[in-house]
Amino acid sequence: MLTMQDALLALTRYWTDRGCMIVQPFNTEVGAGTLNPATVLRVLGPEPWRVAYVEPSVRPDDSRYGHNPNRLQTHTQFQVILKPDPGNPQELYLGSLAALGIDTAAHDVRFVEDNWASPAFGAWGLGWEVWLDGLEITQFTYFQQAGGQTLDTVSVEITYGVERILMALQGVRHFSEIAYAPGISYGEVFGQAEYEMSRYYLDDADIDTVRRLYADYAAEARRLIDARLPVPAHSYVLKCSHAFNILDSRGAVSTTERATSFAQMRGLSREVATLWRDRREELGHPLGAASPPPAAVPAAVTTRAEEPATLLFEIGTEELPAAEVTRTVEAVRAGLVERLAATRLTHGAVRVLGTPRRIVAIVDEVAPREPDVERVVRGPRVSAAYDAAGAPTKAAVGFARGQGADPAGLQVVTHRGVEHVALVRTEAGRDAARVLAGVLGELVVGLRAERNMRWNDPTLSFSRPVRWLLALLGETVVPVTVSTLAAGRTTRGHRRAGSPPLDVPSASGYPELLAARSILLDPVVRRELVVEEAAKLTADSGGHIDLVAEADVLTEVANLVEFPCPILGSFEERFLDLPAEILTTVMRKHQRYLPVRDAAGRLLPSFVAVADGKVDQALVRAGNEDVIRARFTDAAFFYDADITVPLETFRAELAKLTFEQRLGSVADRADRIAALARDLAEEIDLGEDDRATLDRAAALAKFDLATQMVIELSSLAGTMAREYARRAGEPEAVAVALFEMELPRRAGDQLPDTAPGGLLALADRLDLLVGLFALDAAPTGSSDPFGLRRAALGVAAILGSRPELAGLTVTGALARAARLTPVPVSAEALEAAETFVRGRYVQQLLDTGVDHRLVGAVGPLTGTPARAAATLVTLRQLVQGESAPAAGFAALAAALQRVRRIVPAGTPAVLDAQRLTEPAEIDLLEVVTALVRRLASSGADSAVTAETAAGAISLDELVVAAGDLPAAVDAFFDAVMVMADDPAVRAARLGLLAWIRDLTTGALDWEALGSLSASGR
Amino acid sequence: MLTMQDALLALTRYWTDRGCMIVQPFNTEVGAGTLNPATVLRVLGPEPWRVAYVEPSVRPDDSRYGHNPNRLQTHTQFQVILKPDPGNPQELYLGSLAALGIDTAAHDVRFVEDNWASPAFGAWGLGWEVWLDGLEITQFTYFQQAGGQTLDTVSVEITYGVERILMALQGVRHFSEIAYAPGISYGEVFGQAEYEMSRYYLDDADIDTVRRLYADYAAEARRLIDARLPVPAHSYVLKCSHAFNILDSRGAVSTTERATSFAQMRGLSREVATLWRDRREELGHPLGAASPPPAAVPAAVTTRAEEPATLLFEIGTEELPAAEVTRTVEAVRAGLVERLAATRLTHGAVRVLGTPRRIVAIVDEVAPREPDVERVVRGPRVSAAYDAAGAPTKAAVGFARGQGADPAGLQVVTHRGVEHVALVRTEAGRDAARVLAGVLGELVVGLRAERNMRWNDPTLSFSRPVRWLLALLGETVVPVTVSTLAAGRTTRGHRRAGSPPLDVPSASGYPELLAARSILLDPVVRRELVVEEAAKLTADSGGHIDLVAEADVLTEVANLVEFPCPILGSFEERFLDLPAEILTTVMRKHQRYLPVRDAAGRLLPSFVAVADGKVDQALVRAGNEDVIRARFTDAAFFYDADITVPLETFRAELAKLTFEQRLGSVADRADRIAALARDLAEEIDLGEDDRATLDRAAALAKFDLATQMVIELSSLAGTMAREYARRAGEPEAVAVALFEMELPRRAGDQLPDTAPGGLLALADRLDLLVGLFALDAAPTGSSDPFGLRRAALGVAAILGSRPELAGLTVTGALARAARLTPVPVSAEALEAAETFVRGRYVQQLLDTGVDHRLVGAVGPLTGTPARAAATLVTLRQLVQGESAPAAGFAALAAALQRVRRIVPAGTPAVLDAQRLTEPAEIDLLEVVTALVRRLASSGADSAVTAETAAGAISLDELVVAAGDLPAAVDAFFDAVMVMADDPAVRAARLGLLAWIRDLTTGALDWEALGSLSASGR
Repeated sequence: MLTMQDALLALTRYWTDRGCMIVQPFNTEVGAGTLNPATVLRVLGPEPWRVAYVEPSVRPDDSRYGHNPNRLQTHTQFQVILKPDPGNPQELYLGSLAALGIDTAAHDVRFVEDNWASPAFGAWGLGWEVWLDGLEITQFTYFQQAGGQTLDTVSVEITYGVERILMALQGVRHFSEIAYAPGISYGEVFGQAEYEMSRYYLDDADIDTVRRLYADYAAEARRLIDARLPVPAHSYVLKCSHAFNILDSRGAVSTTERATSFAQMRGLSREVATLWRDRREELGHPLGAASPPPAAVPAAVTTRAEEPATLLFEIGTEELPAAEVTRTVEAVRAGLVERLAATRLTHGAVRVLGTPRRIVAIVDEVAPREPDVERVVRGPRVSAAYDAAGAPTKAAVGFARGQGADPAGLQVVTHRGVEHVALVRTEAGRDAARVLAGVLGELVVGLRAERNMRWNDPTLSFSRPVRWLLALLGETVVPVTVSTLAAGRTTRGHRRAGSPPLDVPSASGYPELLAARSILLDPVVRRELVVEEAAKLTADSGGHIDLVAEADVLTEVANLVEFPCPILGSFEERFLDLPAEILTTVMRKHQRYLPVRDAAGRLLPSFVAVADGKVDQALVRAGNEDVIRARFTDAAFFYDADITVPLETFRAELAKLTFEQRLGSVADRADRIAALARDLAEEIDLGEDDRATLDRAAALAKFDLATQMVIELSSLAGTMAREYARRAGEPEAVAVALFEMELPRRAGDQLPDTAPGGLLALADRLDLLVGLFALDAAPTGSSDPFGLRRAALGVAAILGSRPELAGLTVTGALARAARLTPVPVSAEALEAAETFVRGRYVQQLLDTGVDHRLVGAVGPLTGTPARAAATLVTLRQLVQGESAPAAGFAALAAALQRVRRIVPAGTPAVLDAQRLTEPAEIDLLEVVTALVRRLASSGADSAVTAETAAGAISLDELVVAAGDLPAAVDAFFDAVMVMADDPAVRAARLGLLAWIRDLTTGALDWEALGSLSASGR
Repeated sequence: MLTMQDALLALTRYWTDRGCMIVQPFNTEVGAGTLNPATVLRVLGPEPWRVAYVEPSVRPDDSRYGHNPNRLQTHTQFQVILKPDPGNPQELYLGSLAALGIDTAAHDVRFVEDNWASPAFGAWGLGWEVWLDGLEITQFTYFQQAGGQTLDTVSVEITYGVERILMALQGVRHFSEIAYAPGISYGEVFGQAEYEMSRYYLDDADIDTVRRLYADYAAEARRLIDARLPVPAHSYVLKCSHAFNILDSRGAVSTTERATSFAQMRGLSREVATLWRDRREELGHPLGAASPPPAAVPAAVTTRAEEPATLLFEIGTEELPAAEVTRTVEAVRAGLVERLAATRLTHGAVRVLGTPRRIVAIVDEVAPREPDVERVVRGPRVSAAYDAAGAPTKAAVGFARGQGADPAGLQVVTHRGVEHVALVRTEAGRDAARVLAGVLGELVVGLRAERNMRWNDPTLSFSRPVRWLLALLGETVVPVTVSTLAAGRTTRGHRRAGSPPLDVPSASGYPELLAARSILLDPVVRRELVVEEAAKLTADSGGHIDLVAEADVLTEVANLVEFPCPILGSFEERFLDLPAEILTTVMRKHQRYLPVRDAAGRLLPSFVAVADGKVDQALVRAGNEDVIRARFTDAAFFYDADITVPLETFRAELAKLTFEQRLGSVADRADRIAALARDLAEEIDLGEDDRATLDRAAALAKFDLATQMVIELSSLAGTMAREYARRAGEPEAVAVALFEMELPRRAGDQLPDTAPGGLLALADRLDLLVGLFALDAAPTGSSDPFGLRRAALGVAAILGSRPELAGLTVTGALARAARLTPVPVSAEALEAAETFVRGRYVQQLLDTGVDHRLVGAVGPLTGTPARAAATLVTLRQLVQGESAPAAGFAALAAALQRVRRIVPAGTPAVLDAQRLTEPAEIDLLEVVTALVRRLASSGADSAVTAETAAGAISLDELVVAAGDLPAAVDAFFDAVMVMADDPAVRAARLGLLAWIRDLTTGALDWEALGSLSASGR
């Protein structure tokens, strides 16, 4: 059996044989091999560097006293840096797996999108997590930035998770059982340290001391940067980072402290990196500079097409993210069509297909060349071109010579009825090969993804490296060259077959040629194959895949493979005792497995994993089953631990979790939420049952944040509260309220469905907003560490959706929250919070596609989201269709806008019947008076004035009540000169209009509404 | 070429093949691989453990900015732990060298005594530094104690100095040139870190911050020990240690701070170790317990000797320290002779010889067995033994039966004239083999060295492991068994030959048999061979070895080898520009080389190294030349750097070196020494030249402590001051005074030869003593970190030897120093210091063999060492030989002792002539009066009283003056009854005697002198 130390030696040997230098782990605690200066400093600048080393990586947060089978506070990384990118790092990596005895033709080895970023070190890169039969065994990253600096020379970073690999290879289920060396287990070597360091990190580290260490380390790093010594400075930044991690695992880092520390560490890292780069430059780059591969030489075109032929163009990439396959197929199709259209080349249908490793365009019937075209160049009039003798004049000769032609070749054309001499120039059509070489080259250069990266190519930038191009027109290579790549006729086979080079004789029949080699180009075909095969696999056990619920996973997995190979795996029935949400979250999110359900929709103890290519199914099944077992075991471990603890105990433990230094612990926050929810309940009429539910749920609020399950899978917050509350025998309504208080968790999520849940959810978000705005911590730019944007939307959504909360205003609710906030809340802060909530609400309406005029029109109402929402519903009906109400509303809007345009701001509303003498005036006065009366009878206040009316009226009421108003207004304007000479008359007329203005002010922002055509929108 | 990374991999492979586990370097800074918990914790307790790992070891003190060719702040150790001792660790180690491609038959690979101790970690062990052609490449230690705990299961620790090995193997002269990996040098990988970390450790570390870190680390370690978590606690102890090392390299650790920190770290380590051991016990020793090798089975004795034969007994050891070879040869000889004498075995001459690997005893003509002896057991008287019939009585029969004999066998013996019956029992002599088995076994068990250790043997304890026994009587094996060892007839050959087993047929001719295999048993022969060969080697170049100066080195090297192979090496002439003391210090102390001199005694650029066995001379010469070149380069590097710096600059730099927190910097101390020396000069008559010399030397005092050379080779303090002062153009007298101020450097060293030197040397030691006694830091037990004992002896020696200082008293000198001391000096402290100085002086006199009575006699004078010394000289002459003065002095002493015995304490000295009427009284009165008169005329004070006379008289004066006194005293006592009845007469007689007592009190402690025979001593 390969022991762990054998494995480390095998990797060492493999990489030294490939030119890597071996260095030692760093001699201060690091969270990952990346932070060893042999990576994080050496990736800077242009110097080449190839290194491999072991790095015991310390993650205080992962401390589990050695009890958890998969989680260690110190795990072993094997780290490889290849700088520059050698062009074939994936292949080198796969070779290293073979060196460990892993049969890469039989196992399902996959490169699954994973983008790495370390905010504390100002570093990021794109790449993958490598899966071995579903188990993440390696991080593979193209370093793009480190210490805040963009890297010109890109390094490939390969980080093996050694314990995981060994557990898989040795088939053991707890890390402590790994055979570390002959006759000695991992547990025997490291078990005691694992326990004791866990104790230190979780229970015993002295918080004050570690905080002081952090400060001292940071100060020393600062000083060393000033002394221009990046090496010791880096070491102190690492010490900072470790101290921070200890504090964090002790639960002693508040959100603001986290932000401050991260900013500090990021700043220091950035300076260290800059300094290192500068120092290396001052030293003259002792290791030289890596040079990019040479520019490609285009293939010679040997034969010329005579007949229309099929164009085949393949862009060979390293594994693209699933979403990028779809996006790139679309982009290449669009780009190709557009670019071909800009040429004179005729062609037939354009099809673009793709897999994670290739984007393939196939264009039918591409003409062998562009047609020639004639271009006429007009010269002088004929009358001036020939003399009496019919000989060309000086002007004609000059024109011809100027065009490089013989005057004898002049022809005659008629332009606007006048004859001119002219030259007819034939512009020859270009060969298809030449045209296509240009078009296709531009296409590659223009490739862009959502997130782009650099590799060893000096020019290109894309989602993942482009490694080869294949371009055939019929049987001929199209001489596309892009930077270091030249197209040929060679493609690469499936990874299971070792990606062998395959010569493609002709553009025709390419999809079939690949299909015969287990590569299906069409994503739709792949998705269907998955669905079909999964159906077959699950049928026997009476199961099925819920295609609707799993639509996203299906789409994703179809684009994670070149040839889907669904495999039915099973897990122990006992895991079904876990809440279904846990199981599905783990299966979908972590493993991209399809859950299997029975006819009633209940989970069965199986799953469908989708491997890539013709793997050894038994082997891959076993591997995937091990992975899901480990993951479910983790979850069950947390679950079982959690359910032994009374809910009140969890609730009390929230006191240990700092929320924000000045705002107290999470327990303090939960207390405030509870109080606020009860406060808000006073404002509304809550039944006795709801009241009891609210009280109990409030007392338990947020308890699940202290559970291991939620600490592990934070997306289950609320879900676990409901689950654990049910298990603890709480009333169902309480369980539901605890779940609902976390809603909505994201845009478009469900909203609380009960009053207690709604009140708690609202209080939760109000407390967050007021507290952070009071601390002047409003989100800036893309940074929103507290999720205030989401909270603001939640406030608006809840106020807008729960009927019993309809009466609450944003301002009022925030003010209530402010009374409970433990820091002073200034009026400015409260106003800013209100503006923020309303602004987010408006933005969301726009984002979801509501017409900006309608959004503008309800703007004044967003302070009471329920009213804004209701008005928006009405408004959308009113401006839609050709119904009578729609037409009437358009007229009303036009009339009111007209009124508002003419009444100067500040004009008082008066009804001066004595001076309104014209019939149109009198009519309008009557209409207005009737309207006021009608509103008074419908409202509580019988003494309606302009002031009290203003803002009190709803759109619905107004529409009903304002039946005659548009016509009366129109008549008034037709018949009456508002700006009468007599100031008193003028004032009376304006006063009447001002009444109309004020009466309707609160209903809508009429000006924002703009003009509505009769057909509306 | 074997790169450094190849070498690390080769060692890794070699040791994993031998059952070692590989672990990683520790992830906090350690000073040595030993401190990795995989060593320092795992060596505790009974659990077996075999491990190997690389450890980048950080020694801030060795920072040289990467400039020094051999010194790095981080060097790479390769560490191996074998627990338990496998019985053949040296052979395993030599195999690892072969695995690195080192030909151990051609190279001079040697195990040279080196005992390791880490006071800060409460750890020590015995072992060797391994030399490869003179280059120290490995530390090899049998761990005896760790964390203050004695280790029952002994571990073997092998620590390779990887950079040194690689420099030697690759033949490069600067570490940065080592080929680290293919195409990349060590300097390219580590050079920048080396520079920057040196900057940090030497210049830029913030002292306050690091001090605070130290305190925080210590506190955290303390807390974790209390929480019973040894693993994280150990990590914090290491952090403490590193912080301390940083402070130290920044020159910020005072001597007391050092002592305090060491005590603290030692205490913490001890607790961590205890805790770890306890925790492992609580866990039930998960790795089991190592068991010792089985007890040996004695060889069967096959033939019985009939004739006297030679006994050959060889104790095979691992390399003994040179001094232990001599000591053990002696001890075995004495032990053998004594033990044989206790048997009845007859034998001839006993010879014992030895090499570092074997102690061999050869005893001629050992009888084949002990002679039989008869023993007579006496019974009842004959008269009671037989009845009348001549038949044995009941008593006789009872006696016989009681002895298990037949009454018929009773014989008759006469005892004190009475006849008894008796039985004659023959005690048969034992076989020689049986006798010798016992004797030799006891001899081995009884082996003891100055420092003893344990290995895998459960019983034995010796300087180094005993690995085999050979015991032959003639041709027969003597069945000696000791613990796990059984003697046989097999010895082992020379290491150069791979220590092959050799069967020895017979005890005869063993030295010759070994000599034929390049092993010379006789140290004298080996020494002579070295002398002879060295003479031959040096003759050609007109050189020679100074046999007197090199006597110690010669004796040592003869006992470092089994077969001396002197090799003449040379070094560059340029190094001769360095002061000879530097060169000889390096050659003798570090390398055990014999310096070569020309006829005038000047050093030549060559040396004789003594290799062991038939090495490849060219190879070994080259290696040794490389080593000495590196060492001299180091020295030249320091020297060249030093001589560019003005002396005043060094003097100023002393301010950066803390001497003791409360006593200030070394500069402060030098200032005090200067002031004190000038002060003392006021008391004596110093010429103008001496005064000028003193002033200048005082201004520069101790400057060389800031020079790199002295920091490196502290034994050259003073020597370098003289050298650098001369080079800087100071007057010779100043240079000499600066040298002399460091004298004496050890017991028996030369003393200052000039007044300025003497004054400075005195002031130096006085300041030290007063300062430390003021701080209550007198030495306790074996701990004397400030060298106060040496300082006290120095004070006495200087005061006793420099004539111009003869007038100074210890009390007075200390009091002067106290006036300059920056802390309050209590009267008690001053008195304690004086007592200490005088006590040390007395002790030294005793240690150097002066008769304790003489020492006692001068005791009262030791407050003025010059006087004590002079008196002692006189006294020794007076008590020696049969000279007249000697006889007279004996009589005087006897007389004075008689006087002192009779006069009660407190009796006043009076001369009452009126009451002294007896002739003997009158005579004695006259003698005393004459004596007083004579003393008065020789003294300054003419009015002599008993009081003024007391203590004023010197022994010389007294002897001269007291000519008639003994006779007069004797006559007085013969004739006069002192205790007369008349009280007045009695008072007058006692008063006269009290006068004599007081007059002589100051000269000597007469009582302590005891009785002197006429022949004296």
